[in-house]
Amino acid sequence: MQQRGRFITLEGSEGVGKSTNLDWVAHWLTSRGVEVVRTREPGGTHRAEAIRELLLDPSGDEPLDADAELLLVFAARAQHLAHKIRPSLDRGAWVLCDRFTDATFAYQGGGRGIPFSRIAALEAFVQGDLEPDLTLLLDMSVERAQLRLQGRLSASGTNRDRFERERTAFFEAVRHAYLSRAADSPQRVAVVDADAPLETVQARLSACLEARVAPWL
Amino acid sequence: MQQRGRFITLEGSEGVGKSTNLDWVAHWLTSRGVEVVRTREPGGTHRAEAIRELLLDPSGDEPLDADAELLLVFAARAQHLAHKIRPSLDRGAWVLCDRFTDATFAYQGGGRGIPFSRIAALEAFVQGDLEPDLTLLLDMSVERAQLRLQGRLSASGTNRDRFERERTAFFEAVRHAYLSRAADSPQRVAVVDADAPLETVQARLSACLEARVAPWL
Repeated sequence: MQQRGRFITLEGSEGVGKSTNLDWVAHWLTSRGVEVVRTREPGGTHRAEAIRELLLDPSGDEPLDADAELLLVFAARAQHLAHKIRPSLDRGAWVLCDRFTDATFAYQGGGRGIPFSRIAALEAFVQGDLEPDLTLLLDMSVERAQLRLQGRLSASGTNRDRFERERTAFFEAVRHAYLSRAADSPQRVAVVDADAPLETVQARLSACLEARVAPWL
Repeated sequence: MQQRGRFITLEGSEGVGKSTNLDWVAHWLTSRGVEVVRTREPGGTHRAEAIRELLLDPSGDEPLDADAELLLVFAARAQHLAHKIRPSLDRGAWVLCDRFTDATFAYQGGGRGIPFSRIAALEAFVQGDLEPDLTLLLDMSVERAQLRLQGRLSASGTNRDRFERERTAFFEAVRHAYLSRAADSPQRVAVVDADAPLETVQARLSACLEARVAPWL
């Protein structure tokens, strides 16, 4: 019987270098003969991506209610689990996912202030006892991540106004929630200090994968 | 201070005459000086209607997972409650809604077989202690409702094949779940026998409204 695949998630706020390092982790795995299914949340299937579009729709005259947002996130997750993640794991493929439920705790919980207990209730409802085998949390200070983002989005130093300060407070809360999740599940979540040149971050990732993932191969 | 409005829902399977009788109940209320906000589920606001479209999308190559469907229904409900139902009730208007959570128990529970306990968990999550002040459940035998629907959809007697029989079993389960909800909450749910000429059904509705609603006016 085919051995079940492993489920690995990559987490972190905007600006920490998630996309580049996701490529790198995928390469690390495939070069060791693992079949990797790369995917992302919210989304990952046709219907789940349609739910993602509702989540990202800015329709300003009708704000998205916080509970409605949370339920949409978990609706997309249920669809993604049923039609991509579980079937891939069952046939022995590994799933490498750009964000998962830790991001819900970080953004909807830490960022928007939904109580963790409400998120945990939906997590149990949708996932049962499924959780990632390994979560790589790329972490750096909010200030550094914002500087990196600004460098990417525009070179000009636009006005650091109220919105900007609110933005900083939001991402501090997101980071705090991520680190709190990691502290609660040290066996599952590896925190990788991402505030370093790319080669250094990848050396750290490599050490982590050698220690945690190589024994599964 | 403005008195809070009343929340009335109309329920029933396809073919029982829900639309016609919804008009009639709205007229009964407005003719007594009540400001009525008519709405429907799933939907009722711009964003909730967008979620409805996802629910109704037939995209055959990726079936909608049962949990995802249930979470979408409640996401639309959370949005509807936050942006239409609660604000209307708070300013003293009455809300008359074409289907609400009883329909979720009937269709997703009875029809699709999702355990009632899972639906009840999301009901509590989204609604807290809010529930309709009165639910009018239009009831008739599935056979009669199907005949009425067929008369509406096409006059020809097309083949009553396996699909048709599955359809009948589905609607029997929907009806059973509706009646079970009514039996559990006799103070809230009034079952109205809808298998009669329109004037008779409306005389029954009228008696029900005089008994239950007139004291609120």
